[in-house]
Amino acid sequence: MYPVIVSLDPPKDKDCSWALEIAQSLPVERVKVGLPLILADPTCLQLISRLRYTIADLKLADVGHIMSIVMERLAEAGVRAVIAHAFVGWEGALKEASLKAKELGLDLYLVVSMTHKGFDDSKLYEFINLAYKANAKGVVAPATKPWVIKTVRRWWSREIISPGVGPQGAKPCDAIKAGADYEIVGRLITMSEKPEEVLKQYEKCKG
Amino acid sequence: MYPVIVSLDPPKDKDCSWALEIAQSLPVERVKVGLPLILADPTCLQLISRLRYTIADLKLADVGHIMSIVMERLAEAGVRAVIAHAFVGWEGALKEASLKAKELGLDLYLVVSMTHKGFDDSKLYEFINLAYKANAKGVVAPATKPWVIKTVRRWWSREIISPGVGPQGAKPCDAIKAGADYEIVGRLITMSEKPEEVLKQYEKCKG
Repeated sequence: MYPVIVSLDPPKDKDCSWALEIAQSLPVERVKVGLPLILADPTCLQLISRLRYTIADLKLADVGHIMSIVMERLAEAGVRAVIAHAFVGWEGALKEASLKAKELGLDLYLVVSMTHKGFDDSKLYEFINLAYKANAKGVVAPATKPWVIKTVRRWWSREIISPGVGPQGAKPCDAIKAGADYEIVGRLITMSEKPEEVLKQYEKCKG
Repeated sequence: MYPVIVSLDPPKDKDCSWALEIAQSLPVERVKVGLPLILADPTCLQLISRLRYTIADLKLADVGHIMSIVMERLAEAGVRAVIAHAFVGWEGALKEASLKAKELGLDLYLVVSMTHKGFDDSKLYEFINLAYKANAKGVVAPATKPWVIKTVRRWWSREIISPGVGPQGAKPCDAIKAGADYEIVGRLITMSEKPEEVLKQYEKCKG
């Protein structure tokens, strides 16, 4: 299996069948589903979850009470993991969310940095500490900023999953070479006529 | 009309009909809908939007490309306003989101502070500046921290909408007395047997 999580954000004219076909046809263990697909067709979450280890990427960033209700709904739909933002902090937010994740058997990933230029990376160490405190399975750190991944790798022993490959600027293997465990790839695969060839580039990431 | 936005987060056993009944029966102009209701019944967003000025509170905190797709879906459903997090920053995130909101005719609100203890308020001024830059219609600031609302009121001339009244700790009118324009009230109204009496407390907020 390739160290790739396929991000199933549908283009405007596509719906669940598009996402299902991709999830089913590609040799990857994991897929990531976000608001674009859920709003287009919310029943899709359940269908996708039956096929693959599905990460719900709602980038949760609310108080604990609301994140908990949302996680209950996601667990009911069969998703295996959720992504929340580290920046919301512990007391009243991630404390409750991490307890709820444990109760529901959901894997928790925390965003410690983002792919875009405007994101402020000054709290990176604090966010990594929060990820340990929340007993996160992994953190999300950007392929577009390999220096961030290298820093995270030095301080974080569990999974790093990394978006930003393709239109956002990074190339396949950039994040893995910097220390990530998985790259999250969307359009570069889902819009490709030969997605398998994109995946094959991952055979040689680690040299 | 009362200076109240009713937050329609359903308890576990309730669905869209519960939310519609509340939206229809109460003398308020605006309601707020979040992930708990959307995941329970996504078609509900359209139905609610026909009845009231509906704010989609997904606390968007993603890159510009994803926030834009989500806003397109929300506008199609008929919502009038969206809430995004200021902390994601400008370049690659709020820059694109604010352009998209303008294009779609959506009102944009930015979260500049949150109700819970663990939220770090050290970037409040920066977030208010971002709200001006994004041409936000308003900002979200917590009723549980009246000192934050007072600070925001000094620097921000447009709307302040304020959650945290009820189980989260603030009392009706706390935020308005501190300078907010609307209080966002959920369970205190939606779980009340006499919601009109809760609303009546708002008649004397400014007196």
